[in-house]
Amino acid sequence: MKIHTILSPQLFPLFASDVVGKQVLVIDILRATTSMVVMLENGATSVRPVAGVDEAMALKQGQAGLLIAGERNGYKVEGFDFGNSPQEFTKERVEGESLVITTTNGTQAISLSLAASHIWVGGFLNMTALVEAICGVGDEVFLFCAGWKGHVNMEDTLFAGAVAQALVNKGWVIGDDASRAAMALWGQAQGDLHGFLAEASHVQRFQSMHAESDLDVCLQMNTSSKAVLYENGVLVAIPS
Amino acid sequence: MKIHTILSPQLFPLFASDVVGKQVLVIDILRATTSMVVMLENGATSVRPVAGVDEAMALKQGQAGLLIAGERNGYKVEGFDFGNSPQEFTKERVEGESLVITTTNGTQAISLSLAASHIWVGGFLNMTALVEAICGVGDEVFLFCAGWKGHVNMEDTLFAGAVAQALVNKGWVIGDDASRAAMALWGQAQGDLHGFLAEASHVQRFQSMHAESDLDVCLQMNTSSKAVLYENGVLVAIPS
Repeated sequence: MKIHTILSPQLFPLFASDVVGKQVLVIDILRATTSMVVMLENGATSVRPVAGVDEAMALKQGQAGLLIAGERNGYKVEGFDFGNSPQEFTKERVEGESLVITTTNGTQAISLSLAASHIWVGGFLNMTALVEAICGVGDEVFLFCAGWKGHVNMEDTLFAGAVAQALVNKGWVIGDDASRAAMALWGQAQGDLHGFLAEASHVQRFQSMHAESDLDVCLQMNTSSKAVLYENGVLVAIPS
Repeated sequence: MKIHTILSPQLFPLFASDVVGKQVLVIDILRATTSMVVMLENGATSVRPVAGVDEAMALKQGQAGLLIAGERNGYKVEGFDFGNSPQEFTKERVEGESLVITTTNGTQAISLSLAASHIWVGGFLNMTALVEAICGVGDEVFLFCAGWKGHVNMEDTLFAGAVAQALVNKGWVIGDDASRAAMALWGQAQGDLHGFLAEASHVQRFQSMHAESDLDVCLQMNTSSKAVLYENGVLVAIPS
């Protein structure tokens, strides 16, 4: 029961053969994996993450009523039904709907992880459910931070640290210095997550986009009790 | 006067165009960049870092009296005069000598940085001299952690954090989350560096190699007052 942390997709090649048949948790706190959990929490029938904008557009043309969501460089894609703010995916707008989502970093990290036995998805909002689901499988886990365009970022690293700490509390073992660093940072940040993150690059990007309220939503703990699993091309909530 | 941190060579491609004409500090605490400083401190006439074992061997065959040092996977290379332990490079053995050194991670990081205006080299043992030299140039700096086979490691990250903190104290500005994370980790570790590092992967590797005393040498602060610069293929101590 070992924990590894992949601090950005740029580091993924070092782990590509290790993740085969193991568990991966894809982390894109601001905002892809947070939004994915919100969609399912609010009753979306189907959520399909895809890597490309063109792929999302093509799926929409082929299926009446399909809603497409996503951003590039943090902004909603032209012609899409939604951007990537978790606050857009209200019960009113997504219940009973089929959605497709594509984002700069999060959906790409899922694509890289396809050889894993389990691809978990989520964030602070479903952390306890994720930790329990990962423990249920019991096998080695790779905490995969989506980062920002290949760069390591603070919020994904902190969440990896939070999950690592929760697993260590349940008897799991730290497998690398990246996990150790993430956990130490989480130990420092957890008392005042907003304060600790105030200077982070992505948070500053958010402030310049006037999306501060998204930040609050993305940092709330355990507002959802569903773990989310990527299976056969779609996201599945457990329990459904 | 901005600070960036490259947490491993695997992340270098993201920074390759940014470092052109800027300052890079190459960090391989255990043990390449520490050993390089010790060689110059103890009077080596010339120290040439090279990327390959074959290149080092060829240089030795071409120049009588040249001494070659280096490791692969942490162990001394067969046929070399020295391994990579800073304790081998005593005044008695290196004063007035010309040396070549090749290591798993450190010399590769130097090779990647050739487009920089200044390639600084060092560790805890010459930290203050490095910080002053970097401030003397005054331009943007990239703290480049050599890591371990592409992976992020704790000791290089902590030293990057220590340098970042020293520069911030002199009015420099943090440029990315990697620097922010490194600095936060350093803040946590600096009171008990040995204790904080006790669990780190590389330190465990050292213990299994019975090289714990190297660790003490590599974590000592400011035993050298020389900054080290890579220039025209060789390392130069400043002041010489």
